[in-house]
Amino acid sequence: MENQNRSGTAGKAIRCKAAVCRNPGEPLMIEEIEVEPPKAWEIRIKILCTSLCHTDVTYWKMSTGPFAFFPMIFGREAVGVVESVEEHVEEFQEGDMVVPVFRPNCRECRDCKSQKGNGCSIFGGELVPAMPRDKTSRFKGMNGETLYHFLSVSSFSEYTVVDVVNVVKISPEFPVDKACLLSCGISTGIGAAWKVADIEEGSTVAIFGLGTVGLAVAEGARLRGASKIIGVDLNQEKIEIGKQFGVTEFINPTTCGEKKISEVIKEKTDGGADYCFECIGLASLMEDAFNSSRVNWGKTVILGLEMHRTPLPVNTSLLLRGRSVTGCLFGGLKPKSDIPFLAQKYLHKELNLDGFITHEVGFGGYQQSF
Amino acid sequence: MENQNRSGTAGKAIRCKAAVCRNPGEPLMIEEIEVEPPKAWEIRIKILCTSLCHTDVTYWKMSTGPFAFFPMIFGREAVGVVESVEEHVEEFQEGDMVVPVFRPNCRECRDCKSQKGNGCSIFGGELVPAMPRDKTSRFKGMNGETLYHFLSVSSFSEYTVVDVVNVVKISPEFPVDKACLLSCGISTGIGAAWKVADIEEGSTVAIFGLGTVGLAVAEGARLRGASKIIGVDLNQEKIEIGKQFGVTEFINPTTCGEKKISEVIKEKTDGGADYCFECIGLASLMEDAFNSSRVNWGKTVILGLEMHRTPLPVNTSLLLRGRSVTGCLFGGLKPKSDIPFLAQKYLHKELNLDGFITHEVGFGGYQQSF
Repeated sequence: MENQNRSGTAGKAIRCKAAVCRNPGEPLMIEEIEVEPPKAWEIRIKILCTSLCHTDVTYWKMSTGPFAFFPMIFGREAVGVVESVEEHVEEFQEGDMVVPVFRPNCRECRDCKSQKGNGCSIFGGELVPAMPRDKTSRFKGMNGETLYHFLSVSSFSEYTVVDVVNVVKISPEFPVDKACLLSCGISTGIGAAWKVADIEEGSTVAIFGLGTVGLAVAEGARLRGASKIIGVDLNQEKIEIGKQFGVTEFINPTTCGEKKISEVIKEKTDGGADYCFECIGLASLMEDAFNSSRVNWGKTVILGLEMHRTPLPVNTSLLLRGRSVTGCLFGGLKPKSDIPFLAQKYLHKELNLDGFITHEVGFGGYQQSF
Repeated sequence: MENQNRSGTAGKAIRCKAAVCRNPGEPLMIEEIEVEPPKAWEIRIKILCTSLCHTDVTYWKMSTGPFAFFPMIFGREAVGVVESVEEHVEEFQEGDMVVPVFRPNCRECRDCKSQKGNGCSIFGGELVPAMPRDKTSRFKGMNGETLYHFLSVSSFSEYTVVDVVNVVKISPEFPVDKACLLSCGISTGIGAAWKVADIEEGSTVAIFGLGTVGLAVAEGARLRGASKIIGVDLNQEKIEIGKQFGVTEFINPTTCGEKKISEVIKEKTDGGADYCFECIGLASLMEDAFNSSRVNWGKTVILGLEMHRTPLPVNTSLLLRGRSVTGCLFGGLKPKSDIPFLAQKYLHKELNLDGFITHEVGFGGYQQSF
């Protein structure tokens, strides 16, 4: 196989810098590392831009669980250029602009072929801190030690290796700082509004938590023509930020007095919102969201990972009257087909991505983001 | 208004027999009662056949709640012939064969006009033991005392009065003993499979509880071409009964040994059923149903009213992987349009109703059914 790329790096290990986490919760260290060449079905990418996802922060703090392996290279929202590919990679070639995605999409399995859901039954099951096929790492420290992979992406490095099922090609004209936003949080929120809730024009929407994901839900609801988009957040500054993404009304739960949030939302929506979204990860808030949903067809979509693993207690009398609850990862989007679709929406100036960028820092400046 | 019907009874009170419940949980008494003529938007019906719904039994035992008003005339699955109508009733006339239905369907409100759900925002809110518009009763005891209505139907009487929003016309060729089955349990199960779950051909289905509703879910799943229909019940006799309605596999939870029911179902369905239905009304079983549903698109439909008002604890990690939970009353069917559709299915010999009839008794023989 012809394996020489223009820069002559293909097939060889690349020395570069990465932000390495040596222990949970400790500051990342910019270190020199070695990135091995890709194996079959793999791609090595030169990262152009990466953003910080809250999931990075969540796992960075964790000393147990599937990614409590250190030293670890975090990072899962990124865009890059293909440096080299190995055999069985037909979809990509050197120079392609690509977005790596934690959610695999093999396009061969029953789940990937189905119109429903966005899991992958071949690659979606096991969480390993390594490459998905051979369960080994492509990262080494200068002393030869293994550095672990995070959720199949590990973008806090100048170069990374990803499996072909975890990469999506996007148009080279796409601005890099916006492109990395498509690889997790923004897609999650927009997908939840578009694909999971499938919001119709004129609907009423309530969003619990106006972080990146919640604001992206608002953006998706706005694009779908929702008539009322109510944002719920403790941070009063989110009133103005929310407006940029279509939030039409704001509720700060601390100012509701004796009233429950669900009562306030019911008053504002003639009996309950058509669609409610929980974007924080608290069972009590999920319950508030469910209780705020309309009788007969109110749908509650859970996007937040419950931070204490508390189950959501569902009042089944309310459920029987036609309400539903569902959840999704990555907004129910199938990365290979849906990321290019969102990218087109941005290029056609329908989708607001620019407003999501609050800071841009050089590689060494990540600390201020945490 | 011309108010005289052929039998000359229109506009006058009718003396007839009814099975009256004088105190919760006590045997019904066959008594002579007086059924007043209908008021505007109302219809008086001569009941031809009525069946026993589990909801009758549930409320018959209750000494508190919206229907703990005695003396009460129970009965909510029936078929009858219109004896007379009052003004503003355009849809029906004397002699029409009709099915009364507890679930109102005014066809004018936002909910009735929507394609989604089956509630009625005008008549569906308040539960009153009387006629829905003026909140008064049309039944009197011989001593003049008020007898209460049950869920807008009260069919354990030779005559009853119902609102126009609670009646559906069906074809006069339809056999009466099958017709009354369409007014609650059977429609609930079939509707849940067809309209709420919207089961696709080749799907796998698990049904918890093979009573009337559960068997009707199986019948609906069979009609939709489900490839595997697993029935779960403690009663071993349900193996043979279930087969009549398309149940392909049977699980008796007492014979699962150390394994959880959800594990057994996952083994039988390559990872979980596409659709799970709870038809009993127990939170723990609802949880089993949810845990038995497939990752990525598994849908759990709750049909049972939780008997202890215990909330359903939903594991949100499972939810986030694309599962959903919903509930429905009357199978999500809109009575006015969907009951005639089911009736057609029966007349075309696609829908099995005959197998649901286990006993037929005269008016005085109801006790053996309780």
